[in-house]
Amino acid sequence: MKPNTDIICVKSLKKIMEIFGGKWSFLIMGELHDGAKRFNEMNRNLGISTKALSDALKSLEANGIITRTVYPTSPVTVEYSLTEKGRDFEQVFIEMRNWGMKWLKNDI
Amino acid sequence: MKPNTDIICVKSLKKIMEIFGGKWSFLIMGELHDGAKRFNEMNRNLGISTKALSDALKSLEANGIITRTVYPTSPVTVEYSLTEKGRDFEQVFIEMRNWGMKWLKNDI
Repeated sequence: MKPNTDIICVKSLKKIMEIFGGKWSFLIMGELHDGAKRFNEMNRNLGISTKALSDALKSLEANGIITRTVYPTSPVTVEYSLTEKGRDFEQVFIEMRNWGMKWLKNDI
Repeated sequence: MKPNTDIICVKSLKKIMEIFGGKWSFLIMGELHDGAKRFNEMNRNLGISTKALSDALKSLEANGIITRTVYPTSPVTVEYSLTEKGRDFEQVFIEMRNWGMKWLKNDI
């Protein structure tokens, strides 16, 4: 399969990875794909440090990938959810999963 | 668009991200898409530290994503290239680029 070099432009890949940074962003987005979640829920599910989760959420929010909704309960409740821009990244995850099904076989 | 929850399975995403770790792996793969490259070439192009590049290359090689070829020149020449498994990840990058073209407009 001859690589179609103009498809993979490292510059655009770099731009996109600046938005998503490390692996946690993708895992957080994976968590949010089946609906809004609270901080502690994600913290537990992902086994991520509070700082790493908080930093990743701030960056994703600043880049318009997720929104943060505060409910006036007492104490307040905060939920995170994907924006349309964030949800639209689902196709990337679907391709990742397809690749995993093909190459990681029983590991997935 | 109602999320199809069985498509994005965080467990498989986690498995895949364990292979690729941080952002450098994707950028290295982007570099290798238009052919084999040497260490210093990638070091220069990506502006990555020698340690981070060396660690990422070792992990990608251990996971069968890239191969390392040593040519018996004097001094020896070492080149890195994508395996079929690595090249097959191109579809993920294509979807990332499509997402970038739609949402990052003039930044890409």
